[in-house]
Amino acid sequence: MAHLIDGRAIAAGVHAETAARVAALRARGIRPGLMFIRVGEDPASQVYVGMKEKKAAELGFHSETRVLPAATPEADLLDLVARVNADPQWHGLLIQAPLPTAMHAPRVYAAVSPAKDVDGFHPVNVGKLSLGDPSGFAPCTPAGIQELLVRTGVPLEGAEVVVLGRGNIVGKPMASLLVQKSCHANCTVTLCHSGTRDVAAHCRRADILIAAMGVPEFVRGSMVRPGAVVVDVGVNRIADPAARGGSRLVGDVAFEEVSAVAGHLTPNPGGVGPMTIAMLLANTARAAEQSAV
Amino acid sequence: MAHLIDGRAIAAGVHAETAARVAALRARGIRPGLMFIRVGEDPASQVYVGMKEKKAAELGFHSETRVLPAATPEADLLDLVARVNADPQWHGLLIQAPLPTAMHAPRVYAAVSPAKDVDGFHPVNVGKLSLGDPSGFAPCTPAGIQELLVRTGVPLEGAEVVVLGRGNIVGKPMASLLVQKSCHANCTVTLCHSGTRDVAAHCRRADILIAAMGVPEFVRGSMVRPGAVVVDVGVNRIADPAARGGSRLVGDVAFEEVSAVAGHLTPNPGGVGPMTIAMLLANTARAAEQSAV
Repeated sequence: MAHLIDGRAIAAGVHAETAARVAALRARGIRPGLMFIRVGEDPASQVYVGMKEKKAAELGFHSETRVLPAATPEADLLDLVARVNADPQWHGLLIQAPLPTAMHAPRVYAAVSPAKDVDGFHPVNVGKLSLGDPSGFAPCTPAGIQELLVRTGVPLEGAEVVVLGRGNIVGKPMASLLVQKSCHANCTVTLCHSGTRDVAAHCRRADILIAAMGVPEFVRGSMVRPGAVVVDVGVNRIADPAARGGSRLVGDVAFEEVSAVAGHLTPNPGGVGPMTIAMLLANTARAAEQSAV
Repeated sequence: MAHLIDGRAIAAGVHAETAARVAALRARGIRPGLMFIRVGEDPASQVYVGMKEKKAAELGFHSETRVLPAATPEADLLDLVARVNADPQWHGLLIQAPLPTAMHAPRVYAAVSPAKDVDGFHPVNVGKLSLGDPSGFAPCTPAGIQELLVRTGVPLEGAEVVVLGRGNIVGKPMASLLVQKSCHANCTVTLCHSGTRDVAAHCRRADILIAAMGVPEFVRGSMVRPGAVVVDVGVNRIADPAARGGSRLVGDVAFEEVSAVAGHLTPNPGGVGPMTIAMLLANTARAAEQSAV
């Protein structure tokens, strides 16, 4: 049976470090501030922002959530973003995805000051990540996965990593992070996706397999090398008449099958998810530290 | 014997298209302008800038080269960059690498306006490349390699691509370009480097092998799958007592051995090099077109 990587416990360790950084900043008279903007009433977004804001408060951040109606004109959102960019009490600004389809999301994310873009979605931060420039912010989910692996003691140097999915939030930045010539990276990375001819063959040669394509239980036991490390990023709702409400959440990994083969596996929930919040707050602490230099 | 990909002929085709775009701009009263800045007297930089400026003039661009002494303070270079950024007669600005070691090169490249960064080195353009946002400029060498492959009729959709080298100028942006879910891309890309455990095994499974690590004749015949497409980006000077001057240039690919195995191979010189200039001038034409919208 695979060793289950306890994302909640590892996130708690990161949170404790962040709380200490926040306390150090407050001792210098700086209260790190994180503004959340949520547009519309997407139920999942309400839950996510609520969890993030609660944890921010626990760690001593100053935080606030602004909720705009779904019909808000994009220009009004951009005005608010400009005000938060200019307001020194806010060190981080998170605009919860997804935005209403009437808005041009890339334009909105690019309007956030790169220095306050603790989600790591601004092109400047994406570029710095690719260039290996540590002054930028890495997106929270791939950064959290890297931390999970490092704190679990998984050897990264020289590892064969296969990333499934080329999204801008997980897959591509995950590859960027792990391919760098740096400590806790230096992996050989293959990025697979819907256009890949033989995904299973790539999966089977991976030391570390990171599934982030959003296909329910795509990774089967037969696709995993015995002893490999498997990270499940997917959150997919599937129909299940036997479940309460007629559906349940599953990952991109067939948990039972893969746990019989893998050496390490992230459970889902309780694996990657808690790390995303942990890295968001660590990024915000750094934004505040950098603003105070 | 491998079919040799004629980079000079393909570049000539791109140049003809660019010349037509320049003529169309001039017919609208816009003369596309490209400023070169060279710092110090690096002999290779003199040759490169000279070749680029000559070709720019041939195609109808307005161009100029400013040469600064190697001892120029970085602040003076940044002042010049700011003046070119603000001057509407210049649509593109190229600062020839390498810069003197006393300068902080990333800071200098990040000072170029992203809209004039026809070399594609600014973090905003690197980020847009990774995000798949076509409004940015891709670095010229990887963009030129993509054009070489497309115009040679090499199937890219679903191809297994192995890139050797993770530099910011070729390797990483090459991977970013080819992994996108877009026309002329959608490849499965593996990025190999000095930390890769078994480079030869990766090379042997590649449909397209792109060698850009700067190691003389690293890719041997035994490392290439019969019929594969091999692109040689390397320019390495090696000692050779029999050669004029006691040295000669070789690529990252052992040409004789690999040409006996590969299906397609770029010669060196005459392969990738001409495409780099072609894409620089195509980028500059686009910068002028976008400035005129």
